[in-house]
Amino acid sequence: MGDGGLIVIGLDPGSRVTGYGIVRELSGRAELIETGTIRTPVKKDMATRMGVIFERLAELIRTHGPVEGAIENVFVSKNPSSALKLGQARGAAMAACAVHGVSMAEYEPSKVKKNLVGVGNAPKDQVAFMVAHCLGIKKPDWAEDASDALAVAICHLNERRLRRLTGV
Amino acid sequence: MGDGGLIVIGLDPGSRVTGYGIVRELSGRAELIETGTIRTPVKKDMATRMGVIFERLAELIRTHGPVEGAIENVFVSKNPSSALKLGQARGAAMAACAVHGVSMAEYEPSKVKKNLVGVGNAPKDQVAFMVAHCLGIKKPDWAEDASDALAVAICHLNERRLRRLTGV
Repeated sequence: MGDGGLIVIGLDPGSRVTGYGIVRELSGRAELIETGTIRTPVKKDMATRMGVIFERLAELIRTHGPVEGAIENVFVSKNPSSALKLGQARGAAMAACAVHGVSMAEYEPSKVKKNLVGVGNAPKDQVAFMVAHCLGIKKPDWAEDASDALAVAICHLNERRLRRLTGV
Repeated sequence: MGDGGLIVIGLDPGSRVTGYGIVRELSGRAELIETGTIRTPVKKDMATRMGVIFERLAELIRTHGPVEGAIENVFVSKNPSSALKLGQARGAAMAACAVHGVSMAEYEPSKVKKNLVGVGNAPKDQVAFMVAHCLGIKKPDWAEDASDALAVAICHLNERRLRRLTGV
């Protein structure tokens, strides 16, 4: 942790687009460090694309030094083929975190929504609004996948603060 | 390639057990270099387990220097939740290959069977028998996942030799 505050990376992996959001906890508030999306080359084979996710995340982790990370537990309502593709992106992203010493927490999507908005079935735009609000950013210009990644990162900071306070 | 012959790694990823088989092509024959399974710590979180797959494969790639790899295209008949887990293991394994410069080919399971046994619906034990036969090993002592990984590696060597001969 140190004086700079705990740095956390949130992830929203996908085989085409992977959102990431890196935030720092400073005096109990979340501060944005970097957010964005990793787009994989759709015309390349899947292994190459997974390599792109891994390497870009590795670069971000080396640059910003997050020590903890968070990702949504996916509730797989889609078909098995989509689940496989989504799983592949998650595996590449998780491996990038694990091999760089970032310990990962998983949260149910409803938990993330409840944490940020107060209700587990909050609509996407309300979550996005709260993400920007928590980070003190008036006019957010990030993509939806980036916002989702920031949401789970902020949720993780809140949850761990709560755990610390309640001693659980 | 060089004098040592082309080295290829075959993979059969799974979130619990990932089979690998590393073979070298020498004078048109496949020679076993190393085969085995990577078992992930089932009590650890999924990201840690994906990190184990990645790091162990990275180690094997650095040690043996395969330049090409092969994996089965999975036909997902299982439920979405299994597909997601399988996908995660595949993503971690694919990323390990991609970031270490191993170009990956994918083959349909029926293609692998047809390549080794001659028929696309060959039973598992016949495939295993042909794997051992191709490698000139009388009494194979490897696990089923390792054998499956060797099968796709051998299939890849055969297919690329065929492509070279037919100029396709």
